Amino acid sequence: MGRIHTDLALEAKEKFEEDQVEIRGVVIQEDYNEAKDIRTTVVKIETENGAKAMGRPQGVYITLEAPNLSVPDEDYHREISKELAKHMRQLIPIKKDMNVLVIGLGNREITPDALGPEVVSNLRITRHIIREYGVQGMGEECAHSVSSLVPGVMAQTGMETMEIVRGVAEEVRPDVIIAIDALAARSVKRLNRTIQITDTGIHPGSGVGNHRTGLNEGTLGVKVIGIGVPTVVDAATIVHDSMAHLLDTLEEAEKKEFLEEMIAPSLYSMFVTPKDVDETMKRLSYTISEGLNLAFAKGEA
Amino acid sequence: MGRIHTDLALEAKEKFEEDQVEIRGVVIQEDYNEAKDIRTTVVKIETENGAKAMGRPQGVYITLEAPNLSVPDEDYHREISKELAKHMRQLIPIKKDMNVLVIGLGNREITPDALGPEVVSNLRITRHIIREYGVQGMGEECAHSVSSLVPGVMAQTGMETMEIVRGVAEEVRPDVIIAIDALAARSVKRLNRTIQITDTGIHPGSGVGNHRTGLNEGTLGVKVIGIGVPTVVDAATIVHDSMAHLLDTLEEAEKKEFLEEMIAPSLYSMFVTPKDVDETMKRLSYTISEGLNLAFAKGEA
Amino acid sequence: MGRIHTDLALEAKEKFEEDQVEIRGVVIQEDYNEAKDIRTTVVKIETENGAKAMGRPQGVYITLEAPNLSVPDEDYHREISKELAKHMRQLIPIKKDMNVLVIGLGNREITPDALGPEVVSNLRITRHIIREYGVQGMGEECAHSVSSLVPGVMAQTGMETMEIVRGVAEEVRPDVIIAIDALAARSVKRLNRTIQITDTGIHPGSGVGNHRTGLNEGTLGVKVIGIGVPTVVDAATIVHDSMAHLLDTLEEAEKKEFLEEMIAPSLYSMFVTPKDVDETMKRLSYTISEGLNLAFAKGEA
Amino acid sequence: MGRIHTDLALEAKEKFEEDQVEIRGVVIQEDYNEAKDIRTTVVKIETENGAKAMGRPQGVYITLEAPNLSVPDEDYHREISKELAKHMRQLIPIKKDMNVLVIGLGNREITPDALGPEVVSNLRITRHIIREYGVQGMGEECAHSVSSLVPGVMAQTGMETMEIVRGVAEEVRPDVIIAIDALAARSVKRLNRTIQITDTGIHPGSGVGNHRTGLNEGTLGVKVIGIGVPTVVDAATIVHDSMAHLLDTLEEAEKKEFLEEMIAPSLYSMFVTPKDVDETMKRLSYTISEGLNLAFAKGEA
Repeated sequence: MGRIHTDLALEAKEKFEEDQVEIRGVVIQEDYNEAKDIRTTVVKIETENGAKAMGRPQGVYITLEAPNLSVPDEDYHREISKELAKHMRQLIPIKKDMNVLVIGLGNREITPDALGPEVVSNLRITRHIIREYGVQGMGEECAHSVSSLVPGVMAQTGMETMEIVRGVAEEVRPDVIIAIDALAARSVKRLNRTIQITDTGIHPGSGVGNHRTGLNEGTLGVKVIGIGVPTVVDAATIVHDSMAHLLDTLEEAEKKEFLEEMIAPSLYSMFVTPKDVDETMKRLSYTISEGLNLAFAKGEA
Repeated sequence: MGRIHTDLALEAKEKFEEDQVEIRGVVIQEDYNEAKDIRTTVVKIETENGAKAMGRPQGVYITLEAPNLSVPDEDYHREISKELAKHMRQLIPIKKDMNVLVIGLGNREITPDALGPEVVSNLRITRHIIREYGVQGMGEECAHSVSSLVPGVMAQTGMETMEIVRGVAEEVRPDVIIAIDALAARSVKRLNRTIQITDTGIHPGSGVGNHRTGLNEGTLGVKVIGIGVPTVVDAATIVHDSMAHLLDTLEEAEKKEFLEEMIAPSLYSMFVTPKDVDETMKRLSYTISEGLNLAFAKGEA
Repeated sequence: MGRIHTDLALEAKEKFEEDQVEIRGVVIQEDYNEAKDIRTTVVKIETENGAKAMGRPQGVYITLEAPNLSVPDEDYHREISKELAKHMRQLIPIKKDMNVLVIGLGNREITPDALGPEVVSNLRITRHIIREYGVQGMGEECAHSVSSLVPGVMAQTGMETMEIVRGVAEEVRPDVIIAIDALAARSVKRLNRTIQITDTGIHPGSGVGNHRTGLNEGTLGVKVIGIGVPTVVDAATIVHDSMAHLLDTLEEAEKKEFLEEMIAPSLYSMFVTPKDVDETMKRLSYTISEGLNLAFAKGEA
Repeated sequence: MGRIHTDLALEAKEKFEEDQVEIRGVVIQEDYNEAKDIRTTVVKIETENGAKAMGRPQGVYITLEAPNLSVPDEDYHREISKELAKHMRQLIPIKKDMNVLVIGLGNREITPDALGPEVVSNLRITRHIIREYGVQGMGEECAHSVSSLVPGVMAQTGMETMEIVRGVAEEVRPDVIIAIDALAARSVKRLNRTIQITDTGIHPGSGVGNHRTGLNEGTLGVKVIGIGVPTVVDAATIVHDSMAHLLDTLEEAEKKEFLEEMIAPSLYSMFVTPKDVDETMKRLSYTISEGLNLAFAKGEA
């Protein structure tokens, strides 16, 4: 697979299906809601062996594919927000008056990497109100405490995102951390219309920007839910996949060498985005924020 | 070659060189300044036949290739600004106290299409001062009158750019119009490091956005200089070019059909940009603005 | 009163009421809708004498005061949008398949001056679709043709806004021009919660930015509806008004001289804005756009 | 003086001078560099008594007043950057290979509050390079490690800025923290042309936004240098000061009551900014960044 990269567990799975390989330790459930046109795929990586094969940690990876997600339609997005909220409440053992810290990863200056900061900007933040006036200050009997941070990227801060989040988590002591990030997909068809939710957090090499140390229960000492939307495909991936069809008749060894040669190094610093990426980014982040707002609307378990 | 597209006359020329075809009616001069590392190519399309072969109107196309253009280095950019100013003053028959209208084409909301609006935002605008206080108001003996407009794109305005520019030109009666636009290149290597200057204006199908009616002496009744920088490569072009190498042994007819099939339609609404496109756009537009500012710094011929 | 300035006819009228002066040639109607909490004041300046007294041209000035306008509440804004649409359809003799040109005045780089550009960015633009596919292309039996332009301000363009609009209007030949602008109010209480609609267009000295030549039927040869929202109060105005209370006991002559002296010249280049001006600007422009979208939703008279 | 507020120690001092009161425990040094047109005032609050009188903590407050700071002139700003660097190196006991954390306070969405985030965006960040490649990675024999954070404001994060900074400082263990913030001044003349540097950090009630818990050696366990530029004047302050002149003849008791009454409560949520605040903000932040870049250019003591 070499340098060709996807952040979607769904796409890692598909790769094996193409090769007609079955992977032990990986359980897959699919569901299609025709009325809403949402396809849900749950990939559970249950063993160390499965994790190795899939190239990502053990845990649950939920993918919502909603082709119309990138189309402006307020009501439809509401459906997606609700689906997202539902899955969040299943992944997180919701209890009364939870303390939730949301991290908006990525670089707000680069549009396809700005999903995290954009999501956070739409969130209903409550922690400071609850601390000042109590849960009653929210006009509710119970209320989750929601705080958020946009840490920036290493080139801006000089710090690993993980260092910043760990320091802040030490102060805030959240029950759960939710990390939002823009992802790289392998298929152009999935850009801006797929949401991945996982209880494994964010792992190294994810995202549009540079590699980073993982945000997960191991590094932060608290459960980390990762929510991501693929917003880019590597230019190299696109060339790779187009050519792979052609090469089906060549020998394996030749094929690999050939592909490595054919992809110009300059392609690795490019990315491919839909032409309407700026508008799309706004809509997507709104949908995700609403999903989180719904999930934590009231402080009840 | 169908849907594969470049806005650079230089690249259209290279296509013929690859095919070892000589084109009558097209004269080419090349020059390389080693100290400044600027390669200048002047393509003159002198006959109707040459225009047909090259797929663009008769006229002069000057291309400056400056590999370091996308690197932040204030002094180097100054060199490019000067080169640009020099070519501008050759293409335009500069006379005393000229009236210059600069049009910043493109959509300011989409980063790789925002070159035109960005260039205009750095320009030294003088027309309103000269009209209020005379040339003396500029503290000079003579001064060119510079005005500018960012017309927006058709989806925003409902109007052809040409309609807007023609209406405004009717009021302002400029001696020359300069139109700045982001271009599509064919080679990833040229992104953000190439400036094309042409006395043919902007012709239909140029630019990152949708097709539009040409801005040129024919439609506007005044000379139009087009200045463009390639900021994107079609994703389809990248796949096409990578595969072309591979296909060199196939027959021509097979090849064409094959290529058309291999490129997924979804690629045509994608574009490829360098990952640092936002920063680059700011620097580039500054360099071009400075070139124009230098060209029209004093009102002398 | 010299330099103290308001763009609201409503406030000019109040000035006279304070002084218990009745003005011939000015007719005023007031209406308060308690359910919607919208106060509507229609000021009709019917004679040259009235125009002189009020310091603005003859015509109709409708002011909607909606205290909750600056509060985020989607449904309420819908009410305002509908009110605005209703008044638009009364001021403009609506006929079938009208040709409407909307001008977004102001400087998009300066938040309290960006109302016009923001409104335009939310508008439903139809002219290019109707020209390409006919009214049927809109999926309706009849449809108004809506186009728009953001001309920029003179410091950016070197041109009078009026020159640009006149040139474009010459090409587009609209039945009516609608010009949106940010206004200066005299009362802090009116900021961001008042909409003025007038059939006199935009007259010199209006707006947050510099003086400009009027956009009206006289200069453009077509009816111009001005829509404005006060987004700033001159700092000098605030000081003036606070002190005026104090000065009630002084003689008129003393008072005038005193006020002129008390207001530091440096205040004239300041303005006063609410602290949440950036968010407010987004909401306001959305409400106005929706009002226009409603007014021109179908192409019927 | 109640609600009338300034963040500049210089202005607190002037207040006493107006009243011809001398304050024990406060030492003042003034210096004017005519060539550079920079006035430097050092206010040292040396006793608890002085702190009480001045309404701010013991420590050193350096104010640079440079009238041309808000004028675009690259060379001049270089002078200010150097002055700032000089004072920084005096306030901080510079040692070899220091670890510096820069905090950009304020809300990047509100222009006059965006100084901190803007400054940070121009900083030369080195910590991640030094950690990856050692000081040699910087191409120097010794190098300071510079990291930065834009924490956002409480309404966005739900957290006290102090909580976030304390958590991150716990991870990064800086030798010194530098906190940049937009300030409120009392005099319109000082807006955007004054820089205050203090070793007391940022104290509650400072800044354009809401009150916050102080960032200082007491709360963070490490020296905190505060750098601020006044970008706003409270509207209420402007009215207050204009009227104060008038009231000089009234009795003290009457005066106080009168002033409280005259200032409308609605003024307290307004602020006053120069009309060119957006451009000014960019230039100012660049100058401060350059000052910090110079101060920490090499890792030497």
